[in-house]
Amino acid sequence: MIKAKIVGAGGYGGVGITELLLKHPETEIGCLVSLSDTGRKMSDVFPHLRGFCDDVIVAPDDPKTKEAYDVVFFSTPDGVGMQTATEELARGAKVIDYSGDFRFGTVERYAEYANFIGLDPVHKAPALLTETVYGLPELHEIGESQNIVGNPGCFAVSCILGLAPAVAAGIIDPMSIICDCKTGVSGAGKKPNAAFHFPNRYDNMNAYKLAGHQHVVEIEQELGLLGDVDVQITFTAQVVPVCRGIMSCLYASLDGQNAEQLLEIYTDYYKSNEFVRVQDAKTPAANADVRGTNYCNLTVDVDERNNRLRIISHIDNLMKGQAGNALQNMNLMFGLDSGIGLANAGQYP
Amino acid sequence: MIKAKIVGAGGYGGVGITELLLKHPETEIGCLVSLSDTGRKMSDVFPHLRGFCDDVIVAPDDPKTKEAYDVVFFSTPDGVGMQTATEELARGAKVIDYSGDFRFGTVERYAEYANFIGLDPVHKAPALLTETVYGLPELHEIGESQNIVGNPGCFAVSCILGLAPAVAAGIIDPMSIICDCKTGVSGAGKKPNAAFHFPNRYDNMNAYKLAGHQHVVEIEQELGLLGDVDVQITFTAQVVPVCRGIMSCLYASLDGQNAEQLLEIYTDYYKSNEFVRVQDAKTPAANADVRGTNYCNLTVDVDERNNRLRIISHIDNLMKGQAGNALQNMNLMFGLDSGIGLANAGQYP
Amino acid sequence: MIKAKIVGAGGYGGVGITELLLKHPETEIGCLVSLSDTGRKMSDVFPHLRGFCDDVIVAPDDPKTKEAYDVVFFSTPDGVGMQTATEELARGAKVIDYSGDFRFGTVERYAEYANFIGLDPVHKAPALLTETVYGLPELHEIGESQNIVGNPGCFAVSCILGLAPAVAAGIIDPMSIICDCKTGVSGAGKKPNAAFHFPNRYDNMNAYKLAGHQHVVEIEQELGLLGDVDVQITFTAQVVPVCRGIMSCLYASLDGQNAEQLLEIYTDYYKSNEFVRVQDAKTPAANADVRGTNYCNLTVDVDERNNRLRIISHIDNLMKGQAGNALQNMNLMFGLDSGIGLANAGQYP
Amino acid sequence: MIKAKIVGAGGYGGVGITELLLKHPETEIGCLVSLSDTGRKMSDVFPHLRGFCDDVIVAPDDPKTKEAYDVVFFSTPDGVGMQTATEELARGAKVIDYSGDFRFGTVERYAEYANFIGLDPVHKAPALLTETVYGLPELHEIGESQNIVGNPGCFAVSCILGLAPAVAAGIIDPMSIICDCKTGVSGAGKKPNAAFHFPNRYDNMNAYKLAGHQHVVEIEQELGLLGDVDVQITFTAQVVPVCRGIMSCLYASLDGQNAEQLLEIYTDYYKSNEFVRVQDAKTPAANADVRGTNYCNLTVDVDERNNRLRIISHIDNLMKGQAGNALQNMNLMFGLDSGIGLANAGQYP
Repeated sequence: MIKAKIVGAGGYGGVGITELLLKHPETEIGCLVSLSDTGRKMSDVFPHLRGFCDDVIVAPDDPKTKEAYDVVFFSTPDGVGMQTATEELARGAKVIDYSGDFRFGTVERYAEYANFIGLDPVHKAPALLTETVYGLPELHEIGESQNIVGNPGCFAVSCILGLAPAVAAGIIDPMSIICDCKTGVSGAGKKPNAAFHFPNRYDNMNAYKLAGHQHVVEIEQELGLLGDVDVQITFTAQVVPVCRGIMSCLYASLDGQNAEQLLEIYTDYYKSNEFVRVQDAKTPAANADVRGTNYCNLTVDVDERNNRLRIISHIDNLMKGQAGNALQNMNLMFGLDSGIGLANAGQYP
Repeated sequence: MIKAKIVGAGGYGGVGITELLLKHPETEIGCLVSLSDTGRKMSDVFPHLRGFCDDVIVAPDDPKTKEAYDVVFFSTPDGVGMQTATEELARGAKVIDYSGDFRFGTVERYAEYANFIGLDPVHKAPALLTETVYGLPELHEIGESQNIVGNPGCFAVSCILGLAPAVAAGIIDPMSIICDCKTGVSGAGKKPNAAFHFPNRYDNMNAYKLAGHQHVVEIEQELGLLGDVDVQITFTAQVVPVCRGIMSCLYASLDGQNAEQLLEIYTDYYKSNEFVRVQDAKTPAANADVRGTNYCNLTVDVDERNNRLRIISHIDNLMKGQAGNALQNMNLMFGLDSGIGLANAGQYP
Repeated sequence: MIKAKIVGAGGYGGVGITELLLKHPETEIGCLVSLSDTGRKMSDVFPHLRGFCDDVIVAPDDPKTKEAYDVVFFSTPDGVGMQTATEELARGAKVIDYSGDFRFGTVERYAEYANFIGLDPVHKAPALLTETVYGLPELHEIGESQNIVGNPGCFAVSCILGLAPAVAAGIIDPMSIICDCKTGVSGAGKKPNAAFHFPNRYDNMNAYKLAGHQHVVEIEQELGLLGDVDVQITFTAQVVPVCRGIMSCLYASLDGQNAEQLLEIYTDYYKSNEFVRVQDAKTPAANADVRGTNYCNLTVDVDERNNRLRIISHIDNLMKGQAGNALQNMNLMFGLDSGIGLANAGQYP
Repeated sequence: MIKAKIVGAGGYGGVGITELLLKHPETEIGCLVSLSDTGRKMSDVFPHLRGFCDDVIVAPDDPKTKEAYDVVFFSTPDGVGMQTATEELARGAKVIDYSGDFRFGTVERYAEYANFIGLDPVHKAPALLTETVYGLPELHEIGESQNIVGNPGCFAVSCILGLAPAVAAGIIDPMSIICDCKTGVSGAGKKPNAAFHFPNRYDNMNAYKLAGHQHVVEIEQELGLLGDVDVQITFTAQVVPVCRGIMSCLYASLDGQNAEQLLEIYTDYYKSNEFVRVQDAKTPAANADVRGTNYCNLTVDVDERNNRLRIISHIDNLMKGQAGNALQNMNLMFGLDSGIGLANAGQYP
């Protein structure tokens, strides 16, 4: 059994990976760590887990956190994972971090990102940046030798998966990309906030962070590496009153391919990736098709009048956009099939 | 493997049992039958099933429906299952029917129910009424010898489970029971309707069928049998803008027990039933605790000023109120542990 | 023009009365007071008011608050209004308080209420208790001589209006009353809170304060006065995912009247009250019928099998349950028609 | 008093104009016409109007429809208004049509539109096309001499108002425009539909009509006229689970202006239009700011890295996108101030 420690267990990212590990045939939950709910049972914080996970959440300085675990999930804000990741690795654990700490390959890239979001640009574990990988298994080979992974941002997953085949094929203008992204409210986390107070949110929608969203940095890094080009996107984050889900509409100037050709390029690109489902523009698509699952559904379309690519990308922000993708990484880092514990269709309605 | 046929596959009850059977380790889906979506792939009707269940839905007169199956689920309106159940049993299948067809033990009781909802009061398979059982395993022993089951109504499950311990203990006045029940919209099924059109429903709530709801008949039957008394309830069905879930507030005049005593009676009554969770009135409870799961959560409370029992009963109407309970019955009818394929905590948020 | 001061302008109760006063032909807003948003324009806090109310919100100790106003609305928690009401009255203002401060006619009743909710039981302005009135104009004569009013609680409005005709007629057992009440989330106010964080609330419902809700005290006081009897209710507060609205299902043992007789009693009782609409149980009723308006819609029904009264009472908790009713009181206190600025059908859908 | 006839009274567009006319000081409702709810009181179809509009809805061939009215609102599908508009005008009425029938200035333009949506391309009242005007008063002078108006499509209003200043100033590339538009469900009308059945819609979002939306034709016509250029847009219609509201994100390649310059251009363009509110990208904006009102709020932004204009346009699709704009047109056609009966801030939350 793979014994897991979850740091940040009290948040949506923590409960998400807990739910998945409970159903995974080869894992067990060894330690739940959180600042906010210390001393409470996990099932008191999340009553749906009653009888499934009644473990007590411990503080970060609890001796139990120093025991040996096979994998550590950091479902924590930027800057937390980098403080103890080296130590975790030294104790023999593999590390999967949800924040931006290990998404960037160089200290310079990290500094750019950190500056962008107003954090200290000096990385606390620079040696690990050469060992980590951007944890999107559809783009990067992740295998048993991988000990540390930077799990991607939710918007980034939806945009990168939606644009990767076109960028890799060199058929779109990398300076023409527009990502118009709508997220459900769970993307903002569990902490109550005026913007997500039910009476303000139930019949509402808005754009936010127009001045710049932190996920832009990783989208441009990953697409740039893929196409070996400079990529500079226009990105608009929006919130709509759904709980789980991201729908990204992705636009770019296209080299002249028609819808059929584009569909072929996409289908081919993802042919061995079980969690990406490609469909044409005539097939209905909706957030409910991926809700609660690890799938990314891509509708591939061309506005032929304007010679413009249009991709509609649907994911569940808490699954393929977070905990589901993290488990997929874990499977690969332990030599398991990527879909173990994840090949689940979800529930409808 | 238990090979299943699902009649009424195109509705919420059909897709619900399909999802469950796909995850159950000992079942396979043999045949999907529906009037409305004949000839379409199940995954075209329910796109979240793409790659999981791409079988084609067949018409009721398709030769495939006459093959041998181990179990047949009738997720169909009243009057459908009784037409072919005898035939299915003769072919060796076990039958689980979601409608009122097999919930009543005598032709008289059935006639009363049928009259109540304006149906022909003459039962088409009266011989089966002595073989069937009201399919609530917390109240009735259901074992391998059971070949036909009438799966209960969703409101009825929430009310009966909430009142059974008190009625069985003879501590409430059976003529004083009030069931104030709120359901999510999925309880009304998949067919679009002005009352459930999003703009009319999103910020709305209402009571309906004040003149009488069909589930009253079975609630009174089951509670009456349990307490060997006449039971006559006041029942108010209401719809609120949630998708899945029933919250029933149950009231009755109490013999003088305090909250602690009542809690003990309830805890004891359900001590060997894994899908009923009893809690006191100080412990928070909410629909989200059971959403997507087969659990019934009961908050046990006494208004001591008024000597009145108050129970808050939460279920997911499509799970413990329908497909989940049906699978629980199936497990028992095949000699399996009742929780196989069902012991799932759900997803939050 | 009636010049108004609003204390607590930054909350839902404050913005509600602001919206109404802006449309009222005989009022003007003189002063907006709030602890939380001091120094900001009202239209920065509530952007829908841009161009309609760009006044700056002042602190409670701002000199502007000491100027002369014709009416002062206290949209504030318990204990605030009683501190300065005497002073406001001395300056010639009429006072309308949303809290429990002036709902009770004696210091003893107030102490009972205050103890119930854990406040200091000693009233700070006891002399005013003989001058105030429970501000439900359907029950109490409110005229120009009235200078201070305790605006009722939202649940209380829905329950009292629903039960008053039956209690007054002496046809129900006052010890048998059950109030099963569902509120929209706006009833909990503007302050963010885990229970009302969108991801936790959107598909959820729950009962709360089972140990006792503060509105019980005023419901029992008012019904008791009306029937000259002791009234002791069972009350269950519940939250459902709507923004505005209360639906209360009210039950009591009835003296034998049938539905027709009961309807006549109710219709007659409210014949001169423009904001109460009585309907029979066959006429559809829903929260949307009163959303955004000052109406209370009552469905009058009898469970004749059980000889039990059942009333479904719908109000908008922020209108008839709060600011709308406050304006109705203001109209009457200034000798205006009660419906000025309020006779509005709302918007659908 | 301006006496109005409403054709299509039973739909959202019909009830919307009814609500507005009831509050307008200079109008009265003379006749309500509908195919679907003939013989029923308006307040039985829309219970919130009880006591406000209890008129009986008549059939299109009812003699009452032939009486003289000052204004006729056609809240009807394409092809209805053109059949009787000539006759209405001859009887002395002014005509405001919600469909595409009178939005286009030439038979050719109309034929293009009609072909696009699969209708007969031959206009039934071609003589009126020289008399009608595209009913967006911010772009077209509408005065007392105007007798017929084609009220614009809801998406079109949000896009045209958002792009007009930039197109008129000639500072964007007209072939680079992308309109990414999210609408609430009420935009699809009152008729129930699987896509808008609550259980399918409550936690869902999707793009639709990717092959082409009919509003594209009028957007391109209006922007083309304004800039005297050919305009060819990429348009993506999406539905999110709100009831009322459109949020359009509008993108185009910009000539080099910065955010401050762009803001000045927009502010200046709309300086005498009371229903357009322009704001910078630092000021929060949301659908709730315009919900229930006739306002269009425009957030003006520049992605300076990419030299790209980005406008976020918010309207209420049933108000500025439909009935509110229609009333604004009516006011102008009768020589009244454009804001009479419309200068309303809405309700929050």
